[in-house]
Amino acid sequence: MMLFHVRMDVRLPHDLAPEARAEIVAREKAYSQELQRTGKWAHLWRIVGKHSNYSIFDVESNDELHTILSGLPLFPYMDIHVTPLATHPSYVAAADHER
Amino acid sequence: MMLFHVRMDVRLPHDLAPEARAEIVAREKAYSQELQRTGKWAHLWRIVGKHSNYSIFDVESNDELHTILSGLPLFPYMDIHVTPLATHPSYVAAADHER
Amino acid sequence: MMLFHVRMDVRLPHDLAPEARAEIVAREKAYSQELQRTGKWAHLWRIVGKHSNYSIFDVESNDELHTILSGLPLFPYMDIHVTPLATHPSYVAAADHER
Amino acid sequence: MMLFHVRMDVRLPHDLAPEARAEIVAREKAYSQELQRTGKWAHLWRIVGKHSNYSIFDVESNDELHTILSGLPLFPYMDIHVTPLATHPSYVAAADHER
Amino acid sequence: MMLFHVRMDVRLPHDLAPEARAEIVAREKAYSQELQRTGKWAHLWRIVGKHSNYSIFDVESNDELHTILSGLPLFPYMDIHVTPLATHPSYVAAADHER
Amino acid sequence: MMLFHVRMDVRLPHDLAPEARAEIVAREKAYSQELQRTGKWAHLWRIVGKHSNYSIFDVESNDELHTILSGLPLFPYMDIHVTPLATHPSYVAAADHER
Amino acid sequence: MMLFHVRMDVRLPHDLAPEARAEIVAREKAYSQELQRTGKWAHLWRIVGKHSNYSIFDVESNDELHTILSGLPLFPYMDIHVTPLATHPSYVAAADHER
Amino acid sequence: MMLFHVRMDVRLPHDLAPEARAEIVAREKAYSQELQRTGKWAHLWRIVGKHSNYSIFDVESNDELHTILSGLPLFPYMDIHVTPLATHPSYVAAADHER
Amino acid sequence: MMLFHVRMDVRLPHDLAPEARAEIVAREKAYSQELQRTGKWAHLWRIVGKHSNYSIFDVESNDELHTILSGLPLFPYMDIHVTPLATHPSYVAAADHER
Amino acid sequence: MMLFHVRMDVRLPHDLAPEARAEIVAREKAYSQELQRTGKWAHLWRIVGKHSNYSIFDVESNDELHTILSGLPLFPYMDIHVTPLATHPSYVAAADHER
Repeated sequence: MMLFHVRMDVRLPHDLAPEARAEIVAREKAYSQELQRTGKWAHLWRIVGKHSNYSIFDVESNDELHTILSGLPLFPYMDIHVTPLATHPSYVAAADHER
Repeated sequence: MMLFHVRMDVRLPHDLAPEARAEIVAREKAYSQELQRTGKWAHLWRIVGKHSNYSIFDVESNDELHTILSGLPLFPYMDIHVTPLATHPSYVAAADHER
Repeated sequence: MMLFHVRMDVRLPHDLAPEARAEIVAREKAYSQELQRTGKWAHLWRIVGKHSNYSIFDVESNDELHTILSGLPLFPYMDIHVTPLATHPSYVAAADHER
Repeated sequence: MMLFHVRMDVRLPHDLAPEARAEIVAREKAYSQELQRTGKWAHLWRIVGKHSNYSIFDVESNDELHTILSGLPLFPYMDIHVTPLATHPSYVAAADHER
Repeated sequence: MMLFHVRMDVRLPHDLAPEARAEIVAREKAYSQELQRTGKWAHLWRIVGKHSNYSIFDVESNDELHTILSGLPLFPYMDIHVTPLATHPSYVAAADHER
Repeated sequence: MMLFHVRMDVRLPHDLAPEARAEIVAREKAYSQELQRTGKWAHLWRIVGKHSNYSIFDVESNDELHTILSGLPLFPYMDIHVTPLATHPSYVAAADHER
Repeated sequence: MMLFHVRMDVRLPHDLAPEARAEIVAREKAYSQELQRTGKWAHLWRIVGKHSNYSIFDVESNDELHTILSGLPLFPYMDIHVTPLATHPSYVAAADHER
Repeated sequence: MMLFHVRMDVRLPHDLAPEARAEIVAREKAYSQELQRTGKWAHLWRIVGKHSNYSIFDVESNDELHTILSGLPLFPYMDIHVTPLATHPSYVAAADHER
Repeated sequence: MMLFHVRMDVRLPHDLAPEARAEIVAREKAYSQELQRTGKWAHLWRIVGKHSNYSIFDVESNDELHTILSGLPLFPYMDIHVTPLATHPSYVAAADHER
Repeated sequence: MMLFHVRMDVRLPHDLAPEARAEIVAREKAYSQELQRTGKWAHLWRIVGKHSNYSIFDVESNDELHTILSGLPLFPYMDIHVTPLATHPSYVAAADHER
């Protein structure tokens, strides 16, 4: 398994109807929580002051990560930037669940 | 406790003597690992292809975080960027050690 | 308590109806002034020539700051950037209300 | 009197001798504290993770501000960016010392 | 009096009706020329190839400048950037009308 | 004659000897003042907080402007950016010396 | 005569009706070719992969250039950036038609 | 034949009707695959997390490349950036199909 | 196996002795060609006009890629940027060696 | 033959000895003029206020262009950016020597 750092910035159009907005946000939450329970979406943090998050994904391949990200209900409204991560030589958490 | 996302980019001068370089890198590693063992430096990942890392810090205040970062042996040779993190409404890991 | 530097840039759509615009700006003002009276929104300055402000917030946690900022009536129309602040070693205003 | 928002980023050369560095930093601190006591340097905050600060100056003119900033002992080693501030229509601190 | 360098970039929406456009541009011109006659809008130059200008304002305070700029009929359609100016030590035009 | 907006940012090396620095700055001042007296260097303002200026040049051709700028004693230590200016349709200062 | 380097990036709105689009592009072409035949629009190249061009203009003044550019039928849909050019000391094409 | 590195970022409008979107994407796929089969579109990779690709084209001239790119059904909705490539002195794949 | 797009920009110090430069460039070439022969460094192209390359790596994990890149003899003198790649839905080269 | 737009920005180190500087600039001039006489370096213009030029090259391939550019005596001191050019559909100079 491999780790990836992902930043997502959500830009919902102002003219989206409130019920459409609520529906897509609810689907996004369910989709995200299912992936968190499998361990593939390892961390999820809100960036203070923004409709954005930093996330850590733990997946088997680049293809699997793209399938997950492009399946996000909010994908058409997001800017996503992916950075591959490697083990840091000073990292002590050998028993940590990410690796 | 609060979480902060930190990116560190190291730019060591090319004319640093090899033994000075080895010494400062060893001190950096010891300093980092001591903070990881206390839980304050919660995560540490290498960015692939760069002398850089993404880290998550779990501290009590902005002042504590600045004291930690400015005490890094490599601090004079780093560009550091800090982003405050908040709990994400979709986050499921309630029992996770970060909060 | 901790201080945060916040920049807010407002981008209201040109086709917002004047009464809707007046209503949201009035709600923003009331929301801001209530937070200023509690001391949490410690400073608020207009940037000359822009529909933007620099602010200083004095809050207990990152989560509290995000709750305040995402509750702004103008939040959907703003770009917000947050920078955590620490005590400066040359600062003399020991008795200043921020700390 | 008028307020200005100032960001200062310090970039000391790595090959500056430790005593020269200590001397210039001490002169900078004395210079800054004298201006803070007169009220002209109204606020001074460290940016977490950086050798940088956000400051608020309260001066009578652009010329006075440039004279102050270009007299900083660290001026040759700083990037400085100045933004003029105006009274915000939602600001409640009428009795605040800045105006 | 103090000088400020101002850049204004106009971005009129393509779907603005021609008569609305002509009306707002005419009001902008009248507003600008009245300020030029008072001496507060000291210089005004078109940037070649752009719907933009560089201007020099000569005002008594930051607040006065913001009041002038935010009163521009085109203000909702402009990006404005303000830079405070000081006397240059090599400047010879002591009798120049700006100061 | 034509007007050009010029920004100059000076970056003197820290290891320049004080007497060499004083000599080059003195030559720069003499060069600048001579051009100001001919009217070719029409305006010169210091940018507050920086070793930079905004200038207006009034010359007969692009070639004349480049000859003037590349002859500046500080030219090897400057970043220079030139923007051609045209008459603004709202400009009232018909009798102004620039045109 | 003087040379200017100009980059034009065209951004036509997606909802422009096809016949309106064809009409404006045809007018742009006629306008451009008339100026090319006078020699004022000295060169015109398409940037590969973009609806953009690099051009060289050969005009008598900044004002003439702005009149030409702001008269382009596509002017409201373009980002234009102008750079003044001077004779290069290594240039051999003395007899070249540009000068 | 010559190689070019091309990045394409697709930005489809949110209000594009689903059937119009499906139709244009299908035409894009057919167009791309026909060019891949001729060998002119030598490589095509999806950028993880984005509606973007990196591609390598193998064409006879700049004109041929522009004709191919501007003929893409998605061309009006794309940002395209082209970089010309040369043979690398360390490249060993002499028999590789690109050259 | 997974593909990664890598850009490398080399910045050798001007004061590097010619023989040191020749030695490090020779080691870089040998290191690169050995990796190309294993198939891990799948493609390598020179960017025209720059001491830079675009490369495609075909590796088993992020850790393997970082080990390869940080072992480059020129690594201390390079800026490296890595982008993870996924299979494009329009890609026809099913038999291509990358997948 | 194909056309390429090239921007070159020269950054000579301040501590280059004057005779070394004069020698390299003389070699650059001879190299450039020889290429201009062959027609491969079709145009060369100085950017006003900068030690930079815009050039147009007329070559047979990307490889030929890289060989020319990397052979420039000033190549180690230059930032070079290359843009491929195509025939513009509005271009009238059919008999022009570039094509």
